[in-house]
Amino acid sequence: MKDDCIFCKLANGVFPTNSIYEDDLFNVILDVGPATKGHALILPKEHAENLFDLPDETAAAAMKLAKKLGKHIVDRLGADGLNVVQNNGEAAGQTVKHFHLHLIPRYEGDGQNLLWNPTEPTPEELTAIKDQLV
Amino acid sequence: MKDDCIFCKLANGVFPTNSIYEDDLFNVILDVGPATKGHALILPKEHAENLFDLPDETAAAAMKLAKKLGKHIVDRLGADGLNVVQNNGEAAGQTVKHFHLHLIPRYEGDGQNLLWNPTEPTPEELTAIKDQLV
Repeated sequence: MKDDCIFCKLANGVFPTNSIYEDDLFNVILDVGPATKGHALILPKEHAENLFDLPDETAAAAMKLAKKLGKHIVDRLGADGLNVVQNNGEAAGQTVKHFHLHLIPRYEGDGQNLLWNPTEPTPEELTAIKDQLV
Repeated sequence: MKDDCIFCKLANGVFPTNSIYEDDLFNVILDVGPATKGHALILPKEHAENLFDLPDETAAAAMKLAKKLGKHIVDRLGADGLNVVQNNGEAAGQTVKHFHLHLIPRYEGDGQNLLWNPTEPTPEELTAIKDQLV
């Protein structure tokens, strides 16, 4: 645990939470400012600031858990879909510097919009970006 | 491959793409309608409609790859952050019914907003939802 990290305290039961699942690696709690009914956070118990700092095996386990719990939440609450969202860095909207993966069940007409505005690069512009990345 | 699935064809090289990474399980391509410069899609080569239909081991491998390639994209393009987004179901904004994981590098002032509007349930309402999920 990192002493000044609130999510360390939530993940490890120092502060009370609405936990819906716990195992050796993770605590999964309801978000107190949810996008929708059932919005949950997968929190690793061990501190890591973001995805890049998370051990590979914890990252892998987080996605398997997202599959399992996401399906459970959708089924149990009668949701119509699910967003899995994980933000890294303030520019990406990360507000707490402890890795967390959002499970956001979606309901027809729930009034949320988590999509971006697509841009329209030319084929030449896309190829130039690809060339920077390979 | 699923015959009528465009992402099967993109993942398996039937249609040309701006691929930035490929291995036995995945092809990672640039999105043609990107949120930001470097927006990429992790596509499994084997068809699965969404996270729930994806084999556990493929889900796990996808997140390890998101870590590795997300860091690569951020470093190479000088981005300030990264959103990892994976949508399941039309209600969640899934437009193509082949699992895909978005890697969206973020830049200060890029004009995108992928966040939701938080709601304010009472403690009693949250506890009632938790009780439905445990």
